Amino acid sequence: MKNTFGNNISLTLFGESHGEAIGAVIDGLCAGIEIDEGFIKEQLSKRRPSGNTDTPRVEMDEFKIVSGVFNKKTTGTPIAIIIPNTNTNSKAYNYGIARPSHADYTAFVKYGGNEDYRGGGHFSGRITAALVCAGAILLQALKGVGVKIGTHILCCGEEKDTSFSVNSRDVEKEIDKLNARENEAIPLLSDCSDKIREVIRKASENKDSVGGVLQTAIVGMPAGVGEPWFDSVESMLSHVLFSIGGVKGVEFGSGFEMAKMLGSQANDVFRYDENGNAYTETNNNGGINGGITNGMPIIFNSAIKPTPSIAQKQETIDFLNKKNTTLEVKGRHDPAIIRRACVVVDSACALVMCDLLASTYGTSVFKRGIK
Amino acid sequence: MKNTFGNNISLTLFGESHGEAIGAVIDGLCAGIEIDEGFIKEQLSKRRPSGNTDTPRVEMDEFKIVSGVFNKKTTGTPIAIIIPNTNTNSKAYNYGIARPSHADYTAFVKYGGNEDYRGGGHFSGRITAALVCAGAILLQALKGVGVKIGTHILCCGEEKDTSFSVNSRDVEKEIDKLNARENEAIPLLSDCSDKIREVIRKASENKDSVGGVLQTAIVGMPAGVGEPWFDSVESMLSHVLFSIGGVKGVEFGSGFEMAKMLGSQANDVFRYDENGNAYTETNNNGGINGGITNGMPIIFNSAIKPTPSIAQKQETIDFLNKKNTTLEVKGRHDPAIIRRACVVVDSACALVMCDLLASTYGTSVFKRGIK
Amino acid sequence: MKNTFGNNISLTLFGESHGEAIGAVIDGLCAGIEIDEGFIKEQLSKRRPSGNTDTPRVEMDEFKIVSGVFNKKTTGTPIAIIIPNTNTNSKAYNYGIARPSHADYTAFVKYGGNEDYRGGGHFSGRITAALVCAGAILLQALKGVGVKIGTHILCCGEEKDTSFSVNSRDVEKEIDKLNARENEAIPLLSDCSDKIREVIRKASENKDSVGGVLQTAIVGMPAGVGEPWFDSVESMLSHVLFSIGGVKGVEFGSGFEMAKMLGSQANDVFRYDENGNAYTETNNNGGINGGITNGMPIIFNSAIKPTPSIAQKQETIDFLNKKNTTLEVKGRHDPAIIRRACVVVDSACALVMCDLLASTYGTSVFKRGIK
Amino acid sequence: MKNTFGNNISLTLFGESHGEAIGAVIDGLCAGIEIDEGFIKEQLSKRRPSGNTDTPRVEMDEFKIVSGVFNKKTTGTPIAIIIPNTNTNSKAYNYGIARPSHADYTAFVKYGGNEDYRGGGHFSGRITAALVCAGAILLQALKGVGVKIGTHILCCGEEKDTSFSVNSRDVEKEIDKLNARENEAIPLLSDCSDKIREVIRKASENKDSVGGVLQTAIVGMPAGVGEPWFDSVESMLSHVLFSIGGVKGVEFGSGFEMAKMLGSQANDVFRYDENGNAYTETNNNGGINGGITNGMPIIFNSAIKPTPSIAQKQETIDFLNKKNTTLEVKGRHDPAIIRRACVVVDSACALVMCDLLASTYGTSVFKRGIK
Repeated sequence: MKNTFGNNISLTLFGESHGEAIGAVIDGLCAGIEIDEGFIKEQLSKRRPSGNTDTPRVEMDEFKIVSGVFNKKTTGTPIAIIIPNTNTNSKAYNYGIARPSHADYTAFVKYGGNEDYRGGGHFSGRITAALVCAGAILLQALKGVGVKIGTHILCCGEEKDTSFSVNSRDVEKEIDKLNARENEAIPLLSDCSDKIREVIRKASENKDSVGGVLQTAIVGMPAGVGEPWFDSVESMLSHVLFSIGGVKGVEFGSGFEMAKMLGSQANDVFRYDENGNAYTETNNNGGINGGITNGMPIIFNSAIKPTPSIAQKQETIDFLNKKNTTLEVKGRHDPAIIRRACVVVDSACALVMCDLLASTYGTSVFKRGIK
Repeated sequence: MKNTFGNNISLTLFGESHGEAIGAVIDGLCAGIEIDEGFIKEQLSKRRPSGNTDTPRVEMDEFKIVSGVFNKKTTGTPIAIIIPNTNTNSKAYNYGIARPSHADYTAFVKYGGNEDYRGGGHFSGRITAALVCAGAILLQALKGVGVKIGTHILCCGEEKDTSFSVNSRDVEKEIDKLNARENEAIPLLSDCSDKIREVIRKASENKDSVGGVLQTAIVGMPAGVGEPWFDSVESMLSHVLFSIGGVKGVEFGSGFEMAKMLGSQANDVFRYDENGNAYTETNNNGGINGGITNGMPIIFNSAIKPTPSIAQKQETIDFLNKKNTTLEVKGRHDPAIIRRACVVVDSACALVMCDLLASTYGTSVFKRGIK
Repeated sequence: MKNTFGNNISLTLFGESHGEAIGAVIDGLCAGIEIDEGFIKEQLSKRRPSGNTDTPRVEMDEFKIVSGVFNKKTTGTPIAIIIPNTNTNSKAYNYGIARPSHADYTAFVKYGGNEDYRGGGHFSGRITAALVCAGAILLQALKGVGVKIGTHILCCGEEKDTSFSVNSRDVEKEIDKLNARENEAIPLLSDCSDKIREVIRKASENKDSVGGVLQTAIVGMPAGVGEPWFDSVESMLSHVLFSIGGVKGVEFGSGFEMAKMLGSQANDVFRYDENGNAYTETNNNGGINGGITNGMPIIFNSAIKPTPSIAQKQETIDFLNKKNTTLEVKGRHDPAIIRRACVVVDSACALVMCDLLASTYGTSVFKRGIK
Repeated sequence: MKNTFGNNISLTLFGESHGEAIGAVIDGLCAGIEIDEGFIKEQLSKRRPSGNTDTPRVEMDEFKIVSGVFNKKTTGTPIAIIIPNTNTNSKAYNYGIARPSHADYTAFVKYGGNEDYRGGGHFSGRITAALVCAGAILLQALKGVGVKIGTHILCCGEEKDTSFSVNSRDVEKEIDKLNARENEAIPLLSDCSDKIREVIRKASENKDSVGGVLQTAIVGMPAGVGEPWFDSVESMLSHVLFSIGGVKGVEFGSGFEMAKMLGSQANDVFRYDENGNAYTETNNNGGINGGITNGMPIIFNSAIKPTPSIAQKQETIDFLNKKNTTLEVKGRHDPAIIRRACVVVDSACALVMCDLLASTYGTSVFKRGIK
């Protein structure tokens, strides 16, 4: 479905970086969910570049909900969100020179020169602002049924943040801490923000860029959600995560580490606690068995490649004139998108969690509660 | 869509390990593709356990194509494949005891005790035999348009196989070598099969199991296939890969390694060769930029967790009686599924490649050729 | 999705008239629904030709449920049904001569001569046996939540049956009467079966065929089901109805008659009854306002064209040799399919009603009840 | 998918009558299609009320294409269209009183009082302005491959327009005539506009309303498009047609009349013409055999019920206070929507034709041409 995803709660994204507007349509969310526009603004502010580590292009992201919300509550019909593009500066882009690791060349092949190339067009990270808006609405629906999502930078360059207590049943406080952060703060569980900033600053100084690994935890999802084959929780999550530009790897629980373990090390032992609730002592499976939630936190990591736009001179092709050339990317770019990507990943997850809950319990679950 | 995947060419899977039969329905494949049943048998034989490293349950997999093929060619209408279950031995399973890292508990929560628990039911690796059958048909369609897929074991325990020449434009010979292997051979690029067998044998001896990482390469896909957002090549591939039981991580190109690189190291430099064809000097992006193929080989790795069924005594829960207990898994199990999983991954890829080609060029592409 | 339909409960159909088997896969039906194979047989028997009015090809329809049912209850995973073809007699068909009003020519254009033409292949009414099997399972799920469906012949030639009490709130007894009929009986509300048989007999005698209009009523669907735009109840129902070969018109409530009324005549007046339940005094809208059920019976008519296969000599084309020719259809054909089509329409409706209920209330509605 | 329809070319609709804006997103249309905004305006003007026969609410429909079109050509990424609502007058509506034959009551049941009831909200005919915008873009894509669509009023009250030459191979001139009409003109094939206006005027005078039957013809679709089961041309068309408010019946070719014919009368005889092109001498099947186009014009009729909003006092319920009451609808309403509905039906058809062509030939068909 190209730019639409979701079985029961779906999201459609549209827009180009330097066109009139970008936007999103959420369909399927039940009526009566309270929508706090202040929270949407807050989420957008976490995606917004800050002077420190990010691109100097700052959009105020003046979103407008043009349908689907009435008297501050969802109506049950499609919620359309429009974010006009304002701070556009197309002069910095030269069409025809393929920026390495960007979609310029593939877009040219696919769209035959008709693509809106300005600022990366539909491939721009700008589109994620619409995803974050939509995600903020979906996160409010999830909050009402006790589901919370949090993402932090697990590593950046050689620096490593603390990991979520992956083998713990309870990571809610860690999620709360991440979500309560200041807008420009780097989402981290430990106190290593200076080190991370230094990694980014150094890369920026060298006209270079860095990537990193993000780690996400989701709590509150009941056991029994997801499907054995193509709608496994891992399938649905990875589908949306890999839609986000820059994500090149996704692993659940212990992921690639798990591939090196013995079965006796990797298996998560089930136990009942004193209240008769099942849990696992470890969480190498990231809260998912056979594609279905087991009631433990859902934990996964996303590998984010370094921002392709770097200020160094690079060799590349001029695909309009079909010849080799060199390129010095001007324009306004991020030396690292990992800080800003955290809220994007949370938003993507929110879509999948909402859709999975609606698929199992019906779309009215967000009014009725999980039961 | 739960057990159906694909936009233009779709696959539906059904069946339980110890039920009457398992099977698959392929829909959307155009008319006139020649189907060689011998090739399907060959592919099934690569998934079949062999005395050496795998479970002693051996099914002859007597598949039957009951519709959609006439005079050895596809008719254009749904291709249904049935594989009766014969060698079933349900006595070895105790319902109610959750095998750690298996779907017993999550299935119980989801299906409320109505699930066909025998041999893992619909969650059994047995279902992948139907996927392999379908994949064999789809691989024949792909062959006709010059697309080839190959998977090998990249690592198992501490042992490592050679990597595909990931930064090379041409991995076709390596793919051919893998696909020409003997049925019981371990798919490897280098000559380390004894070492891998030894890793598996040792685990088996210790009543334990091992996982590993598989690496897959796809050649022949034209540039310009895939979509910017939710139908990115990575999204579609990961969706199907994570449907396969045991897959806990997927990374494209340099994946998680790429997250540690600087932009200047990670960016793949575009060049034109002497014939005016664009390529990249490295392939850290795994052949995909902005979700769209760039003409380089598509390369990705899948992390396979160690087989959960081990013969050691394990602590777990009895969810029928709601109490803690211990379990010694009897039955017939694989100390490692990585050898058998290679052809399963190839089959999953075949579905996605067919669907992506059909979405871009129309379903008739397999008759008409890519143009 | 070509041969698959349904958002939350989906049905996939496969098979050709003279291939190995036909079949169906139901996906999404929740676990724990009791399946009575006797009822499936009964439904099949209503679709089966009887000596009187129908084709002499009689298949015993020995269906086999090969997955998704365990201990006589649904498991929650895909239910696959296989019906082997036995009584096939391909000699009667000449490939290349387009039977008028049949799909021979269009299939040839679409499939380029690779279609399984024997007995109409995938276009044969035979495929509806698989739909009836699946429908019988879905009807059992619906019965559990109080939803009933009944179809009768509203007119055939000049003969007219009584209409459902379309403006009545209660047509349950009429539905029960239809469903309790003998296998070979013609589904009628009034006592006009002799007249209908005579119409068919006369057509048959003249080597001709007749069509008719079927009327269907559904009771028990709660108000509030369906969606304003593309998943309107009318949209979903008509989508599946027009998939059935021979259906050329669908109208809801007063349908085409309503187009001739004045607003003051057509509007259905809402009232509360003594128990505080809303109803409408008339039911010109067929139980649907704005695409959503209003709690009144859903009523619609389907126009069935006369069976295209007639024994008279007809002019037509030989598309293999690209020339005009004449044709005398031999083989075994129905002078009228309207009797047999009733249970097919019921089955198609059952799919849509199940899917609509699952979309609103979650797939667990069939265990939980509507609330 | 609720408010999204289409497999390869999809349309998403959003908005409420008196909200900020309504709009549409088209996804999947290939890059490079020229978009003439003047044509969109023209199409909107045909949907716009005119002083004569329609509601006095006149919106100027100042649409804005905010994405997906660059340098007056499609970019290949989603085309989003926004139409702000300006002339809103919510005071005329009383929430809680169910307007008979409207969706007020069903929306209340479905959305629990959270629906945007003003002016019918998402159920308003206003949303069709977004459909017409999208349709105008899709019609331009179709024009490029030689497909044309035209709709006229076949009957209104007792008045009847000429029918399309349904049994003719060529109705292109009739379609051209309809499409070349003046904005406020009633789409008719014969010269009966005064009579039709009189029917409407008389109803209006009596505080009443009228419906009618629309007839649509599509030329230029190649043979071989559509699918045997759930994506039959009839299924896809009826799905979208029944999404349009007020449509209560759809019939293809001779439709309900065909149900009364004998097979020998109904069968369309195939012939080759002097140029070796196949055609049928009659077109009772409306250009579709077995769900697939046969190369003849696609012909169908849509029954439009009389506008539910009439100025007469009507009995109904007050669902907020759960009591019977009476209602005099004030506000601004159409005594007939059949004139305005013609362009809406054309737009709905355009979506289906585009999607069917893309599904068979690939989305690039609109650049490449049909081959």
